[in-house]
Amino acid sequence: MSDVETIVFSSEHLIEFSRRTFEYFGVPSAEAQLAAEVLARSDLRGIESHGVARLHTYFDMLQLGRINPNPNIQIVRESPSTATVDGDNGLGLVVGPKANQIAMDKADAVGTGWVSVCHTNHFGIAGYYVLEALKRDLIGWAMTNSTKLVAPLWGGERMLGTNPIAIAFPGKKHPPIVIDIATSACAFGKVEMAKRKEQDVPKGWIIDRNGADSENPHDMINGGALLPLGSFREMGGHKGYCLATMVDVLCCVLSGANWGPFAPPFALRQEIPKRSVGKGIGHFFGAMKIEAFIDIDDFKMQIDDWIDTFRATTPQPGTQGVLIPGDPEREAEQIRGQTGIPLVIPVVNELRDISKQTGIPFE
Amino acid sequence: MSDVETIVFSSEHLIEFSRRTFEYFGVPSAEAQLAAEVLARSDLRGIESHGVARLHTYFDMLQLGRINPNPNIQIVRESPSTATVDGDNGLGLVVGPKANQIAMDKADAVGTGWVSVCHTNHFGIAGYYVLEALKRDLIGWAMTNSTKLVAPLWGGERMLGTNPIAIAFPGKKHPPIVIDIATSACAFGKVEMAKRKEQDVPKGWIIDRNGADSENPHDMINGGALLPLGSFREMGGHKGYCLATMVDVLCCVLSGANWGPFAPPFALRQEIPKRSVGKGIGHFFGAMKIEAFIDIDDFKMQIDDWIDTFRATTPQPGTQGVLIPGDPEREAEQIRGQTGIPLVIPVVNELRDISKQTGIPFE
Repeated sequence: MSDVETIVFSSEHLIEFSRRTFEYFGVPSAEAQLAAEVLARSDLRGIESHGVARLHTYFDMLQLGRINPNPNIQIVRESPSTATVDGDNGLGLVVGPKANQIAMDKADAVGTGWVSVCHTNHFGIAGYYVLEALKRDLIGWAMTNSTKLVAPLWGGERMLGTNPIAIAFPGKKHPPIVIDIATSACAFGKVEMAKRKEQDVPKGWIIDRNGADSENPHDMINGGALLPLGSFREMGGHKGYCLATMVDVLCCVLSGANWGPFAPPFALRQEIPKRSVGKGIGHFFGAMKIEAFIDIDDFKMQIDDWIDTFRATTPQPGTQGVLIPGDPEREAEQIRGQTGIPLVIPVVNELRDISKQTGIPFE
Repeated sequence: MSDVETIVFSSEHLIEFSRRTFEYFGVPSAEAQLAAEVLARSDLRGIESHGVARLHTYFDMLQLGRINPNPNIQIVRESPSTATVDGDNGLGLVVGPKANQIAMDKADAVGTGWVSVCHTNHFGIAGYYVLEALKRDLIGWAMTNSTKLVAPLWGGERMLGTNPIAIAFPGKKHPPIVIDIATSACAFGKVEMAKRKEQDVPKGWIIDRNGADSENPHDMINGGALLPLGSFREMGGHKGYCLATMVDVLCCVLSGANWGPFAPPFALRQEIPKRSVGKGIGHFFGAMKIEAFIDIDDFKMQIDDWIDTFRATTPQPGTQGVLIPGDPEREAEQIRGQTGIPLVIPVVNELRDISKQTGIPFE
């Protein structure tokens, strides 16, 4: 971001502003605070695409009545280790944490908890949820579907979301291993950035509206698609497609949400699908009590050993060597927790617009 | 395989020969039969690398006493939805099905079951286990670690196995979605085949012993490594590394098996790691009762709709269009179930060698 002008804000300031924005539409205070914290956590961890950069979209959706500010989130079916949750079209930033808590409570009771959620909306970063599980010595899992952007292997059109998978494992003296990955070859934000800079993107990221390989970011944005992780058949593109399928089914088919190309859009500019096959989008949360498998201290010490062992891998020449999953986000969080969160001017202007429309002071 | 000489055998014949081979070393009949069926299922499904092509390695390991023919497979810890299983160094082809059954029984009882297994050996194809779960209307999961072959992103040496992930979802009128993928960019078998044919491999499959990118299969085989799914940083190579990490921790750290580079080798030619951090290799099985989340018929009809929808994806020009995960293996199984299993001559010769050493008739 060194070549882009930014203004720095404290996370406290952004949380306050987001909370008041949610409250403005009738989101209860405690839930507005929670939603604001989930958003800020994304900015703190350096995943700017999922933080306050999305607040104006939440604002639009609430203003248009397309998100329910005060949902009645309910368990519609359950067993000792599972639940299906209907989010009543609430903010994913509120439905997600509640469903995740159900999974964690079940893990404490019977060893694991697994919750599939329908009728919900974007839930921020998947990593947020698995970090919550770590606070309770649980292995947390989180997945979500999202608006179609990704072509299945050998497909020429958008059919799947970027469908992320997150999971985390605690260490004892070391910080945890935190995995939080989209199942597409690259993030949509990277294609948008290349477009802004008028730069080509690597071969294997995108196809154009006719399904042809392209390196021009405009081709993807104007009706093309992202490719799944692995990109091409010989590089394992079918594997990225399989992983996105797994997420789609666990989040949506299992809960009764809209799967595949029928996920409702989040941004206003995106077309609403002609068909609906369920309610809202879907999430999937899991929690596993480590003590149900092995002594927690043994586990954590082995994770420390795993981390030390992998850090000691002979580096590939020309690289900085092997990182541990979660390193980049944790480093961002350490820096940004102290120095604040730099926002690019377009995002600042969006927050200013919310301020103007709501009367909530921003600067 | 059209350019390679093969001899065709019925799966029944191969099962009989494998069963008798296992029995020769004292594996009880029912378990020998089970192990033989798991192996044959791999050949039937066209995954030749994991079928009877490995029987001679099992033979070697049993002959050297490195696998226990009559293990006391035990649950060493459990909760209503979880178990940790010690396979007592048995055949993975026997330990795996037993542990999978524990997961399935727990799913029937409390909605889901999750079993981490230590002190075990290669278990065949991950897909076998999730197909078993389908017979009981369960969503099955299976993972395993394996001998080190894959470098983590930015690493210059082998640190992880090809660590596969399998999961399957049943349809109603359609055959199931069956996902069974390694977390490496390509299978080791493809590098071996390129070596036999003296052909280059695509960029992004392998590195040489110094960690440098290579297209020469000899470089990987002579001390180099496979790359993780995604291959390079900008193509998402960190994601393949993250997925392999997830499998490694769930199978090994959670069960007390040997993780990462310390997985004991399966083939005799491979070096035994200098350190041991647990017992044997590890597996991880999951089973989820669909009825615990949603009506089973609703689920299956939605899966049918999902399959129809994805088959109808606009094809990418120059390709055959979108497949459903599991299509290639199911088609192989249909053909091979009728016409038999073609084995290449080197594999036939290995089986002949077993026949010669044991006196069990093969042809």
